[in-house]
Amino acid sequence: MTKKQNQFQLMDEEQLSLALIEAQYALKDSRSKSNAKSQLILVSGIELAGKGEAVKQLREWLDPRFLQVKADPPRTFNHKETFWQSYARSIPAEGQMMVMFGNWYSDLLTTAMHVSYPMDDTMFDEYVENMRNFEQDLKNNNVDVIKVWFDLSWKSLQKRLDNMDPSEVHWHKLHGLDWRNKKQYDNLQKLRQRFTQDWLIIDCEDEKERDQQFAQSILRAIQHCPEHLKQGKERWKQADIPEALLKPSTEVMGKDEYKQELKQLSKRVSKALRFDGRNVVIAFEGMDAAGKGGAIKRIVKKLDPREYEIYTIGAPEKYELRRPYQWRFWSKIQPSEKITIFDRTWYGRVLVERIEGFASAIEWQRAYEEINRFERDLVNSNTVVVKCWLAISKDEQAKRFKAREETPHKRFKITPEDWRNREHWDDYLNAAADMFERTHTEHAPWHVIASDDKNTARLDVLRAILKQLKVE
Amino acid sequence: MTKKQNQFQLMDEEQLSLALIEAQYALKDSRSKSNAKSQLILVSGIELAGKGEAVKQLREWLDPRFLQVKADPPRTFNHKETFWQSYARSIPAEGQMMVMFGNWYSDLLTTAMHVSYPMDDTMFDEYVENMRNFEQDLKNNNVDVIKVWFDLSWKSLQKRLDNMDPSEVHWHKLHGLDWRNKKQYDNLQKLRQRFTQDWLIIDCEDEKERDQQFAQSILRAIQHCPEHLKQGKERWKQADIPEALLKPSTEVMGKDEYKQELKQLSKRVSKALRFDGRNVVIAFEGMDAAGKGGAIKRIVKKLDPREYEIYTIGAPEKYELRRPYQWRFWSKIQPSEKITIFDRTWYGRVLVERIEGFASAIEWQRAYEEINRFERDLVNSNTVVVKCWLAISKDEQAKRFKAREETPHKRFKITPEDWRNREHWDDYLNAAADMFERTHTEHAPWHVIASDDKNTARLDVLRAILKQLKVE
Repeated sequence: MTKKQNQFQLMDEEQLSLALIEAQYALKDSRSKSNAKSQLILVSGIELAGKGEAVKQLREWLDPRFLQVKADPPRTFNHKETFWQSYARSIPAEGQMMVMFGNWYSDLLTTAMHVSYPMDDTMFDEYVENMRNFEQDLKNNNVDVIKVWFDLSWKSLQKRLDNMDPSEVHWHKLHGLDWRNKKQYDNLQKLRQRFTQDWLIIDCEDEKERDQQFAQSILRAIQHCPEHLKQGKERWKQADIPEALLKPSTEVMGKDEYKQELKQLSKRVSKALRFDGRNVVIAFEGMDAAGKGGAIKRIVKKLDPREYEIYTIGAPEKYELRRPYQWRFWSKIQPSEKITIFDRTWYGRVLVERIEGFASAIEWQRAYEEINRFERDLVNSNTVVVKCWLAISKDEQAKRFKAREETPHKRFKITPEDWRNREHWDDYLNAAADMFERTHTEHAPWHVIASDDKNTARLDVLRAILKQLKVE
Repeated sequence: MTKKQNQFQLMDEEQLSLALIEAQYALKDSRSKSNAKSQLILVSGIELAGKGEAVKQLREWLDPRFLQVKADPPRTFNHKETFWQSYARSIPAEGQMMVMFGNWYSDLLTTAMHVSYPMDDTMFDEYVENMRNFEQDLKNNNVDVIKVWFDLSWKSLQKRLDNMDPSEVHWHKLHGLDWRNKKQYDNLQKLRQRFTQDWLIIDCEDEKERDQQFAQSILRAIQHCPEHLKQGKERWKQADIPEALLKPSTEVMGKDEYKQELKQLSKRVSKALRFDGRNVVIAFEGMDAAGKGGAIKRIVKKLDPREYEIYTIGAPEKYELRRPYQWRFWSKIQPSEKITIFDRTWYGRVLVERIEGFASAIEWQRAYEEINRFERDLVNSNTVVVKCWLAISKDEQAKRFKAREETPHKRFKITPEDWRNREHWDDYLNAAADMFERTHTEHAPWHVIASDDKNTARLDVLRAILKQLKVE
């Protein structure tokens, strides 16, 4: 520790403040530009080391209007929620900086230190790996993640506890463990060393150095807003288009047979949705007029609107564009929500955004892995993910467009843009093919539903859902 | 009831759907225009009456992409939260429609029916009156509120219970009372009649009529997006400018005395903030460079950043402009947050928005009452509201602006706009005078702090806070 102290150079405070403010303004100006970036600072450490003081000092050095601080008390993990779910909404937008005191690592430590939920090393390390992957995805999507551990030796901690103002004791206890317990202290240090290898570790014996070390590393981290890469290194290997997409079956189902089947199936589906202990996310993709809305209507037929939530996903709003593309979905999937249905989804990244060029090649090519991870996290947290692609032929689409134009109360469903999108028909087929190849996973399989016949398609969607649910 | 049924006219379904969609598109197009409107539909009623079915039918008739449905299970009120707090975030933006199944009325009924929290009629009626006032404020700020009670006779309810699919029983129980208990049913009917005089009451014996009555009234409600009034009827009576604003005292405090006092006071303030059982909201207003940031720094001096939240309020974002002006503050005041500090506040409505013309005369003139109500709700829900106006003279401001321009790390704090705002100096004084006269209330008084001497001002802010807190 003494070595480190000798190496470290204090900066002139006004200089440091000026540099921080300039860097902060550059960060702010990156908004909506090709070097857009936000900064997420995860702060953890030993009680009384001075995390709070260091953040307060940072706030004074830079422009406090563009530094947000979030401080949740640590919680223990539960099996119904991914570790990022409660923090997702707070991921900073481009140009913003956010300090998180409570974060997934403090939750992990709290969970591991909690006596009634013992966690073995394998599980602990798995969590850490998942967290690293999540952070990598954030970084890839322009959110810089900086992790800082404020450290303090056992001896200094005890001394600070001795000198503490009694009015603060109560408050500090709320947030922590028993810091007089040497065994607990040692255990915590051992645990945190399993994940802090790549963290900034600040030795907090000296207050001035602590504040400067912290601020200087934040400075270094925000000083550069590099242009984002647009192109991956390797040539993209296009997947073959599955037969099911090229020629969706056109068998037509009779009305009577359909009605009878529908009645039975929708009853079974509503029962299964209620009976299954897990949350259910149902995701629909497919060409325009493939019948997504109609299929959704049949899923919820026997349900009460209070039992489900339907999200129809359109172009993102400006404030959504300033965040990772998955952000607007993170906040729509709530652990308290039993059934969530998406009419278009996060796959927009590898479909419309790819085709229209809203995502660069490197971005959409990376997205498959990101999406798989996202869905795996959900599945591991008590959620069933059902994904349906409604496949129709180009002729059938034209027929439906025309019918819509001729029916007054359906006219709103069709716009010139829909006709324009048809020009990209083959691009969408190619994009869909890549999507199936890369995101048809064991935990969240795709169901390709032949949809030229609406009735058949609707029943097949219900069957697909049943396949993934526990059935009484 | 039979009378009503005879009078009621069913519309052709396709006609109805077409009319709904057209009205909905007009609503959507009102966004950011002078006839902007959103629609909030509160839905309550007897279990099994068919609220869910009616909403589902409505969803099918109109464009479901622009109808949001929110369904929270009813909760009992607690004394630490205003009745609107948990719903505030969901108030729809201009152009949107939102159905709320769980709403403040269902919470009220749940609370009143809850055996362990008996509520007398006076209290019940007080709640209802508060709710009405809140809704009136919403309406004034372009959120239409429609309230619908789905009614069902005891006999029909029992019959429907008899015929219910067993798989649904469990789910319906979750949300309700014991619907086999006649006394409870009668009690509920008696209670709801205390507030449903101006609701749409739908008799739900007949399903078709139920759905049509509901949809037709929604249609009537959204068909007209009237231009908003800009001007009030009466001439505005400008308040006199208080002496304290015109000539803030210029007594200068010595550095040593200041330091000693500050040390004592900030310790007392942090203790009091911790000791007081209530949440604390501290609101700062004042001319540019009046010293708001510096004063805030001294309040939090002895606190940990995890104990408070500071919001620096700038111009609203586009998505915030689409909602009532208080919306962005509602969501920042959390019952879980102990200390919340605002550097500029909701008073922007009657200061900058008034002066720059962002709010029409009728809007800012109405805002005083709205703000008083908002603060009273907070105070009645376990919150202390401390409001400070930092008063500086025009000369002192000029001095500080120049000093900022000459100090590198303070230069970011000054922009050409700040100089331009000085031209409105007298307008701001007038606006502040009106504000004091109309919003200096017993529950949330203003503290005018003479701020030409920074040190004196900072200490006086701390003293103002102490005055409103319980002190050990």
